[in-house]
Amino acid sequence: MRRLLLTIAPVALCFAVPAPAQQVDRAMVARIIDEGTTQSQVMPLVQHMTDVIGPRLTNSPQMRVAEQWAQDKFAEMGLSNVHKEGFDFGRGWSIERSSVRMVGPRPLQLTAIPIAWTPATQGALTAPIVVAPMEKAEHFAKWRGKLRGKIVLVSEPGTTRELTDPTFKRLTGEDIAKLEAYREPTYDPQRLARSADSLVFDEALAAFLADEGALAYVTKSYRDGKLLHGEGYMHQVGKTSPLPGVEIAAEDYRRLTRLVAAGQTPTLEILSDVRFDDSDAQAYNILADIPGSGGNGEYVMAGAHYDSWVAGDGATDNAAGSAMVMEAARILKSLGVRPKRTIRFALWNGEEQALYGSTAYIERHLATRPAPNGPENSNQHYYNQATRFPITRKPGYDDLAAYFNIDNGGGKLRGIYAEQNVAAMPILQQWLSPFAAMGATDVVISKTGGTDHQFMSAIGLPAFQFIQDPLEYSTLTHHSSADTFDHLRGADMRQGAIILAGMLWQAANADDKLPRTPLPRQPVATDPFATPPAED
Amino acid sequence: MRRLLLTIAPVALCFAVPAPAQQVDRAMVARIIDEGTTQSQVMPLVQHMTDVIGPRLTNSPQMRVAEQWAQDKFAEMGLSNVHKEGFDFGRGWSIERSSVRMVGPRPLQLTAIPIAWTPATQGALTAPIVVAPMEKAEHFAKWRGKLRGKIVLVSEPGTTRELTDPTFKRLTGEDIAKLEAYREPTYDPQRLARSADSLVFDEALAAFLADEGALAYVTKSYRDGKLLHGEGYMHQVGKTSPLPGVEIAAEDYRRLTRLVAAGQTPTLEILSDVRFDDSDAQAYNILADIPGSGGNGEYVMAGAHYDSWVAGDGATDNAAGSAMVMEAARILKSLGVRPKRTIRFALWNGEEQALYGSTAYIERHLATRPAPNGPENSNQHYYNQATRFPITRKPGYDDLAAYFNIDNGGGKLRGIYAEQNVAAMPILQQWLSPFAAMGATDVVISKTGGTDHQFMSAIGLPAFQFIQDPLEYSTLTHHSSADTFDHLRGADMRQGAIILAGMLWQAANADDKLPRTPLPRQPVATDPFATPPAED
Repeated sequence: MRRLLLTIAPVALCFAVPAPAQQVDRAMVARIIDEGTTQSQVMPLVQHMTDVIGPRLTNSPQMRVAEQWAQDKFAEMGLSNVHKEGFDFGRGWSIERSSVRMVGPRPLQLTAIPIAWTPATQGALTAPIVVAPMEKAEHFAKWRGKLRGKIVLVSEPGTTRELTDPTFKRLTGEDIAKLEAYREPTYDPQRLARSADSLVFDEALAAFLADEGALAYVTKSYRDGKLLHGEGYMHQVGKTSPLPGVEIAAEDYRRLTRLVAAGQTPTLEILSDVRFDDSDAQAYNILADIPGSGGNGEYVMAGAHYDSWVAGDGATDNAAGSAMVMEAARILKSLGVRPKRTIRFALWNGEEQALYGSTAYIERHLATRPAPNGPENSNQHYYNQATRFPITRKPGYDDLAAYFNIDNGGGKLRGIYAEQNVAAMPILQQWLSPFAAMGATDVVISKTGGTDHQFMSAIGLPAFQFIQDPLEYSTLTHHSSADTFDHLRGADMRQGAIILAGMLWQAANADDKLPRTPLPRQPVATDPFATPPAED
Repeated sequence: MRRLLLTIAPVALCFAVPAPAQQVDRAMVARIIDEGTTQSQVMPLVQHMTDVIGPRLTNSPQMRVAEQWAQDKFAEMGLSNVHKEGFDFGRGWSIERSSVRMVGPRPLQLTAIPIAWTPATQGALTAPIVVAPMEKAEHFAKWRGKLRGKIVLVSEPGTTRELTDPTFKRLTGEDIAKLEAYREPTYDPQRLARSADSLVFDEALAAFLADEGALAYVTKSYRDGKLLHGEGYMHQVGKTSPLPGVEIAAEDYRRLTRLVAAGQTPTLEILSDVRFDDSDAQAYNILADIPGSGGNGEYVMAGAHYDSWVAGDGATDNAAGSAMVMEAARILKSLGVRPKRTIRFALWNGEEQALYGSTAYIERHLATRPAPNGPENSNQHYYNQATRFPITRKPGYDDLAAYFNIDNGGGKLRGIYAEQNVAAMPILQQWLSPFAAMGATDVVISKTGGTDHQFMSAIGLPAFQFIQDPLEYSTLTHHSSADTFDHLRGADMRQGAIILAGMLWQAANADDKLPRTPLPRQPVATDPFATPPAED
């Protein structure tokens, strides 16, 4: 799941609404449960993605291996139309070796990681630090002339958080009920524009630091407890930061700033042995089908992003969802059945930077929005989507009967976000009903954002994301150095793959395609004299 | 606080017992609160210990700096009789630089730390791993002949724990009430002997690995979430492990074992640039007094261990307690008052290995137990104490009127463990009464172990440890790489120093010394036909 979320939540609905007469194919569900339980391959699949291949940063050498492996696996399972679809992305990047040490006033090995797509140091770089937190261009003036020859700490040190919630959590009925409450959607283009500009600032900061003769920059991890993340967004060709950058664990970062405040000036030694790979600037989505018998081009689709950050192995984010998608394909294919509609399986790429892969699929197959005014970085690409109207449908728009996304960690599925698609809710509820005893019970009206169903839903398509038990997703593993295979739970992963297969089967064989929401239009200023909503 | 605990808990008592007539000196308490609040130095003191000096492993160069600094500070505050008392300990050791990488099948920087008192690698050591968990000498046979030229992973990989408790916690009334419940003490010399033997096994394992031609050994961190600890116990001269050893974060360790299980054999590159310092095999307790006016040698004492492990800066364990002790000294001294009994402040050393420092003080000043049968390592030194009878009192035994220990992290004091000293409870309750509004309310009958009051209490002296809010002590910081200054809370630290000063003042000026428990004797087998209690 991408870090920046556009979350909009809506209307409580009563499920006493009479469901359509269509029957659930419980005999088929029983076969799916049996295949997904006694013959499950979901844990070997996810173990290969994480332990063996490792992190899958878009366009990295590991991702190239992963792209090929997934196609080989789909082919081995007997799927059809296995192929990759490319889109413009940028540079490949990977870490070979890294080390950050305080060499004075006392020797200390720090916990740190190179920031994605920053350049290597040439051997070890040793220099004194300066603590110069900068969050907007107005802050540059204060530091002009003071950074030459320095390693610059650009984050505010902040304080530790008191984590009074459990690290590991399953949803209670009360938690899920909260997702059923309506919150009116907001549309504030000024706010979206400000959000879109955060990477513009990052680029300006990097240029400022280089102009000032700084040697490297350091950010603080946003989680305590020595966890690291290393996200970076300057992946486009020609946009690479001129300076090496490292993220330092919060405890280590704050110690550096306190030493400075106490009159000592630490010297750091940074070794960042990272490699760029510019052999191919395209990233690739992986696609594979179980062909339908209907012969009318209609299809249903399951998707999960396959790319990850690099501090861990991208296990809960999102090898978990990718493996559930692959296992759902295996389950359905191995049952030897032929659905009415084609069932398509998608492993998206470039999700972590800006939902690039799913957006590219939309633009190629489903609908277009007006082009941006100029070249966009990943933040702008993401936030500007919501401001581009009108939407122009492509011929394939009508063919997509349902899309199911998985990207909220490795936890058990507990229900589904209906994305304000009121008409689809009773049908989704019916399809979900055989899985109630497995813990998946609720269809909630809420929207949820930050992952690949988002821009499909935003053009009116029936595209949904599942509700999942969080386990340690937000507290520990999301984007972090602890995002490894051992934080997954086999029983949860098998449940997810089974339910995904079941939902796909029912969507593929339903008499009618799922209802759609009205085609979204440019929102008007419904409340022009109101105080703008506060920033998050 | 030491990792291995001997905890024994006892009898619920009713505090409706009439308290002795003696009055609490509330005017003095008010002055202590004012001095400890508006003039507090506890945070600057603990910041210097942690950020500036850093971790204080017994006999390390940093500990030598810390020993001198504490004496200088006590002298600067105007305390008397500031001095250090030495005892035999062993080698000094510190980390200059370290790195552990997986170099194949894919490059990956691992999160790891050298194990305390293991030797350096000579430059980088690169070799394939073998997963050979060994927990007792019977396991050696399985691996004989298979370890030559290998880096040996000696821990079981285990699985991640589901942490359903909050990371950050303050005690509720219900939590404290549990400490008031009686549990009958147990005495099982066979079990103590088995516990004492764990380091005997570690030494045998190190010798076995060296004999077999292994190159280094690796243990798994016992916490998930990429935390490290690096505890090691072979600190005695002539007892150093022949092989370098590193602890690897649980996630990274388990990945290595899964890769082996999946048919791949990772190669590791270990760089452990650590240094021994054998300039002085003695460790030192730091002592300082505010002299009493009584002229009869009686004294009360506050103590905290000053030494730490090295993965973090030893902030909550136990710069926090050390700084509270120093701040209590500063508060009382700066008030310019003269207590009836001398007030002594002790910073203990070598606590983490076996309560060495406080035990040395006991043997020199308070009482002796029979000598061990032969040389002891730290585990045996610790566990064997409880089996050595009879206790022989020294002349100084009667002089110690009360001892208060602080070593449960940086959290607010909430009460005091009375260590089964039933007669002292109403008096302690009376002394604590002015601090109820600060959150310190309960005198509980329980014993608590694993820190420096333990062997004083075990010889019948009125020696107590405070109950503290845990904050993140057991979940995050205890012995870990996250044990840094920023996990301390100023308001908690000030409260602790104030209450410690208040308790010391009242104990020093009470008409009578605190009651003592009967002099402990060799326990008899009270229930010889019972099934032995289960192992923890």
